[in-house]
Amino acid sequence: MTVSRVRATSTRLADGRGLIYFDDSEPYLSGATTRRLNDPRPLPDRFAPVVGDDGIVRPATGPEMRLDPLTGEWIPMASHRMNRTFLPAADACPLCPARPGAAYSDGEIPATDYDVVTFENRFPALLQVPNQDADAGWLVDGEPLYPARPAAGRCEVVCFSANHRSSFADLTPRRVRTIIEAWADRTGALSALPGIAQVYCFENRGREIGVTLAHPHGQIYALPYVTPRTQAMLRQAAAYRERTGGHLLHDVVASELRADTRVIHSSEHWVAYVPAAARWPVEVHLAPRRDVLDLPGLADDERTDLATTLLSLFARLDRFFVAEDGAPIPLPYIAGWHQAVVGEGRELGRLHLQVLSVLRAPGKLKYLAGVESGMAAWISDTTPERIAARLREVAE
Amino acid sequence: MTVSRVRATSTRLADGRGLIYFDDSEPYLSGATTRRLNDPRPLPDRFAPVVGDDGIVRPATGPEMRLDPLTGEWIPMASHRMNRTFLPAADACPLCPARPGAAYSDGEIPATDYDVVTFENRFPALLQVPNQDADAGWLVDGEPLYPARPAAGRCEVVCFSANHRSSFADLTPRRVRTIIEAWADRTGALSALPGIAQVYCFENRGREIGVTLAHPHGQIYALPYVTPRTQAMLRQAAAYRERTGGHLLHDVVASELRADTRVIHSSEHWVAYVPAAARWPVEVHLAPRRDVLDLPGLADDERTDLATTLLSLFARLDRFFVAEDGAPIPLPYIAGWHQAVVGEGRELGRLHLQVLSVLRAPGKLKYLAGVESGMAAWISDTTPERIAARLREVAE
Repeated sequence: MTVSRVRATSTRLADGRGLIYFDDSEPYLSGATTRRLNDPRPLPDRFAPVVGDDGIVRPATGPEMRLDPLTGEWIPMASHRMNRTFLPAADACPLCPARPGAAYSDGEIPATDYDVVTFENRFPALLQVPNQDADAGWLVDGEPLYPARPAAGRCEVVCFSANHRSSFADLTPRRVRTIIEAWADRTGALSALPGIAQVYCFENRGREIGVTLAHPHGQIYALPYVTPRTQAMLRQAAAYRERTGGHLLHDVVASELRADTRVIHSSEHWVAYVPAAARWPVEVHLAPRRDVLDLPGLADDERTDLATTLLSLFARLDRFFVAEDGAPIPLPYIAGWHQAVVGEGRELGRLHLQVLSVLRAPGKLKYLAGVESGMAAWISDTTPERIAARLREVAE
Repeated sequence: MTVSRVRATSTRLADGRGLIYFDDSEPYLSGATTRRLNDPRPLPDRFAPVVGDDGIVRPATGPEMRLDPLTGEWIPMASHRMNRTFLPAADACPLCPARPGAAYSDGEIPATDYDVVTFENRFPALLQVPNQDADAGWLVDGEPLYPARPAAGRCEVVCFSANHRSSFADLTPRRVRTIIEAWADRTGALSALPGIAQVYCFENRGREIGVTLAHPHGQIYALPYVTPRTQAMLRQAAAYRERTGGHLLHDVVASELRADTRVIHSSEHWVAYVPAAARWPVEVHLAPRRDVLDLPGLADDERTDLATTLLSLFARLDRFFVAEDGAPIPLPYIAGWHQAVVGEGRELGRLHLQVLSVLRAPGKLKYLAGVESGMAAWISDTTPERIAARLREVAE
């Protein structure tokens, strides 16, 4: 994967975590700066040997994951995240650039300015430990029904802007394009790590869904297993190919374009629509016209179109609900890129962004109660056509 | 299904919905009362013909459900619930008994007192419309990828107590036993309705998960399809039987008893344990020792044991978290009964209650963000063993 138009500068934080600056404009300030400014924090070695309760020193281990025998799903156990240390001061944002002239940064970014930055999460749910055999499995309590293995993946953070008060929809097309380059670069690099099954780039926005860091940022998970939703999509796509010879995700986009009842954006390279069986109070899928497997597979002009398309889409989502005084209500949302898996079934994949919101009316959230949480069964409180009608209404 | 020890009295509400009083003690007050007190509300006929925008009168239809082509899941569209009429006054609880001497009740229960009541939800997500062919399907926009059909199920409410300020854990063993009889009776009756695939009895408790009615109550969904979680369990159980000849759900209980690291309750007929791959901040499964398919299949002594077991379990859950002053914090929870499906795969089922909570610390909820909502992938913030240790600690 070659990164075009941006300069990528790699460095390492004090505890060895990787950090990459993606600079899109002269004088490439963050990349230049970081060569002078090392991370001065006294962070502990993440992989230092551990002394057990029995006094024996053992090599560091990462988080484990267990196979749920009832559903066949892997469940990473991120319990080690409960022992978080070195939390930044309450008034310091760990995603803001370092203050110029400060002895050292309270936060994660050593440079005093940046365009876009990606780095490894300090308290990750998934972690690859050097020299640990990620394929080595064991049985919980020695029970054959309870296989476990290392949750050997990678969790990264993507800072969208050095400006703490900004948000994705406020960025310039050039900056969004840089984020796309960062997503594509990291997808390519993380897919090449041993044992990675799929890469998921996503953003959680809004206090309503538990986001505690207001600084505009997203996350990237490199997962050592195929997630349940992706497994379901692969099962459906394989059955469809078997039955019809067609490509399911391609034909869904074709169906939406033909029906035209739920399409809300259509540009040279991209189509956005409310899916025919949307389950969330607000849900939009954005897909390229061309069959593309993942973000690294996007051509230059598709990326440029995507940058403006994303800005237009998110601006519209922030007009979906209005307060009683007519003021728009910023939509809390989850936006995640579904990409082709790395291994078996890769050819069944097709890149698309899923944006969903749990806000069903101003001040009213859709809660996941018994039917959703206990049975994984979704019931929509609206219809896809109503969502689409509103998103057409608030187009510029 | 014969209901023992309780007297069941059926009646109909003004709009034709069924209501059943389950009385467990002389003088069977609610059952006797309701014969004198009809529901006097001017409720509209739920199945009246509808005049369309085009002026044409058509037979009433119920909610529809659409098949999500990406996941193969049915999504009921409960949009008709948005047009709710006849909502009770804000200060009136629709689940409280009618006030003695009042001209008529504001609420749903015509009787002036009751032990346990079940009735059809007035604004159901699933509804069987008389004379509508539930098997009749159609295509959204004529697209073969988007099948739809009537969401022809049934949603019922179960009032656990006439006392508005009570909660499940406050009930007497006799009253809990009556609730068990009501669950079993309704499971049997709803399973016999045409087109019902499975019956789910559950309770949502706590404002934290969006419950707006404080009155202690649960719900029963009779679903016209097999839910995603149940489908996953059936796939796993079928593969396990193929591979080993064994019964998966039976062997999971046996594994937990053998390991004994997560068992938190063990009585003559019941075992409660934190599952080895628990995904929620608090999660407990409660299963009978004997292989039982569903609630109607429970023997008399199993029901009696279950009543006291449930009271002990929920009392313990309310001691799981304590406030800074040491006061226990009532746990918001979802408790749902997984029962064998009605049709194919029924023999792979085994009754168990799943109790889960999204509270991960006092005042702190687990939010379902990108990985959970976008990928249906769960990451636990704790370990099953820690949950079990705490539940053992707070045993009486």
